Amino acid sequence: MTHDAPEDRAAAQARDAADPLASLRQHFALPQGVIYLDGNSLGPPVRDMPGRLAALAEDWASHLIGGWWRGWMDLPARIGARIAPLVGAAPGEVLVADSTSVNLFKLAAAALMARSGRSVILTETDNFPTDLYILDGLAQTLGRDVKVVRLPRDRLPDAIDERVALVVLSHVHYRSAARWDMAAVNERARAAGALTLWDLSHSAGALAVDLDETGADCAIGCGYKFLNGGPGAPAFLYVATRHQDAFVSPLPGWMGHARPFDFAADYVPARGIARFACGTPPVIALTALEAALTAFDGVSMAALEAKAQQLGDLFIQLTADLPGIRLLSPRDTTARGAQVSLVHADAEAVMARLIAQYRVIGDYRPPDVLRFGFAPLYTRYVDVHDAAMALHRLLRDRGS
Amino acid sequence: MTHDAPEDRAAAQARDAADPLASLRQHFALPQGVIYLDGNSLGPPVRDMPGRLAALAEDWASHLIGGWWRGWMDLPARIGARIAPLVGAAPGEVLVADSTSVNLFKLAAAALMARSGRSVILTETDNFPTDLYILDGLAQTLGRDVKVVRLPRDRLPDAIDERVALVVLSHVHYRSAARWDMAAVNERARAAGALTLWDLSHSAGALAVDLDETGADCAIGCGYKFLNGGPGAPAFLYVATRHQDAFVSPLPGWMGHARPFDFAADYVPARGIARFACGTPPVIALTALEAALTAFDGVSMAALEAKAQQLGDLFIQLTADLPGIRLLSPRDTTARGAQVSLVHADAEAVMARLIAQYRVIGDYRPPDVLRFGFAPLYTRYVDVHDAAMALHRLLRDRGS
Repeated sequence: MTHDAPEDRAAAQARDAADPLASLRQHFALPQGVIYLDGNSLGPPVRDMPGRLAALAEDWASHLIGGWWRGWMDLPARIGARIAPLVGAAPGEVLVADSTSVNLFKLAAAALMARSGRSVILTETDNFPTDLYILDGLAQTLGRDVKVVRLPRDRLPDAIDERVALVVLSHVHYRSAARWDMAAVNERARAAGALTLWDLSHSAGALAVDLDETGADCAIGCGYKFLNGGPGAPAFLYVATRHQDAFVSPLPGWMGHARPFDFAADYVPARGIARFACGTPPVIALTALEAALTAFDGVSMAALEAKAQQLGDLFIQLTADLPGIRLLSPRDTTARGAQVSLVHADAEAVMARLIAQYRVIGDYRPPDVLRFGFAPLYTRYVDVHDAAMALHRLLRDRGS
Repeated sequence: MTHDAPEDRAAAQARDAADPLASLRQHFALPQGVIYLDGNSLGPPVRDMPGRLAALAEDWASHLIGGWWRGWMDLPARIGARIAPLVGAAPGEVLVADSTSVNLFKLAAAALMARSGRSVILTETDNFPTDLYILDGLAQTLGRDVKVVRLPRDRLPDAIDERVALVVLSHVHYRSAARWDMAAVNERARAAGALTLWDLSHSAGALAVDLDETGADCAIGCGYKFLNGGPGAPAFLYVATRHQDAFVSPLPGWMGHARPFDFAADYVPARGIARFACGTPPVIALTALEAALTAFDGVSMAALEAKAQQLGDLFIQLTADLPGIRLLSPRDTTARGAQVSLVHADAEAVMARLIAQYRVIGDYRPPDVLRFGFAPLYTRYVDVHDAAMALHRLLRDRGS
């Protein structure tokens, strides 16, 4: 176990000094004296966010309804095109719309219709709850014989067979940070004639996701975690080009119509990704998300992922052997997302004190998980060191 | 036909001077020299909107994830409780969530499940397109024998019989401003054992809607028209208390769970209106909507409706007999919403010129409708007069 040695802190500082991504932190407004390791739950605002939002309100006051024709209407596709390279997609494959939950419903329903001879949606036993709930809700809403099968991680890939219409997985698990081998699952699904739908909420913006290259069919993701789009930011969805004109949204709102302003009596889906839009685009929230994404300009996702993993490795090295602590996340870097989860019997109290006394902000997930996110855009090696030392001191002071 | 007489303008100014609601206009930032009659499409921002949005961004920067426990999480119910009195509902009957289209899907599906022995959704032939599309999408998504029947307005009430599960109507028609007698339709539906779902997009914030008193079952509405919540603002939904614990959302996202932060494997709907939430609340957009609603503080909806109708009456009086113009909206005040629609063969060009040359902003709806909204919070009688005179001059100059 590493102790609170000055040379360790100096080593962390040296890594920051040598880090070519270090300057990206300047994009963000982060409070003084706080070590923020919860960007996997809510990313911080970019520094000019107050100004960007105020400017949008001024635009709205000046242009009123005319604002729609001065760029607002294009926001869902335009921001989608900015997110696309972050997840290994082509620009016309990503759209920003609705929430992650609503997008899951839309794409899962569309994929099921495209595989109507099959009746099983396969997912992981302890996938993120809203994903499980939405899939169950969809199965209940559909009158036909659709069944959601939840399997533990280790039994899941082998269960992808010809009964399976759709495999729905979180690329990175919200609790453990365990990361699926996307290429392997896509390949297995393809061989069985099943489709895949990836929830990228815990990977987009932190890892080098490659949807196209790995042959993914659909994906959804959250705008407010590693993408820093603001609390409850609009979500995104991805449909591989080869499926777009065959998939039909169960929520055919007017914004997905081929010609919404014809106010036609019958729905004609737009070509391409636009058909997965539903209601009127949330311009204020989209403006915040667009501003946030400027922090990714010119940044290599491979470099960001490498940094996230090194931050995680350092944290594991400094904490995994602390008394009373068990590492929940995979130790293997390639099997882990940009977060490290530690089990402690008194996790809730430990996290409360870590936040209150040491100003190290991670989060607690019931029943016993301490979760720490390492957003590579703004987290420093010295933050990881200092957070680990805070945990060390805290556990020592309470007798673990 | 009234001509461009100075005494008419003076009369309009006198009405403004005597109007007890006139001071409400001070809440809004409206551009100089523009007469804005499109608040039924997008309301203007309240004056302190830039500051409110900037302050939210500062809060986000300061409190990061902690913001959720400093009021953000309560926004959907809190704003719902502010909208409730505007639509004649009790505070626990209204929730802000998602878009109008998504809310329609959720409530229509829930109502159908509650009337599962019945197979017909009844709606108006030329209801707002997204409502028609969503209902069709829902019918196609549900495997069972559900049929959407569209009928012309005059034949609709008599068709509410024991086969009808749900009647879905826009309280005020987006194109004609024709207004349903909500009490009469609710009564007819109740007698037949059908449920009603009202789209209040074109009435909430302008008319004295009374959902509870008239026995409505469910309603949805838009945040960005007369409520002024901003482009693409979050929408609201209403479920009468008597139905809340029987209705189940087809989109059971985690925010509608009884205990979302237990991260439980199975969905248990929250009690009351909260079960109709789905994904994470869009805090920035909700903040804008909450700021907008302050303009309604202490204002009587009956007084607002009366003013909206008087503004509309004045506009009709000044324009309905212009050459080449036909009044599409009901002349009868009680049968009309807060908008006046005029038919002109060359409506698109007329509206374009009205905006460009006279800076009177209404809108065009295909194929031949000029649409003018009279938001009673900020529209003056003199605006109505000047807009009518602009139309008069424009038509005279082009030889009608």
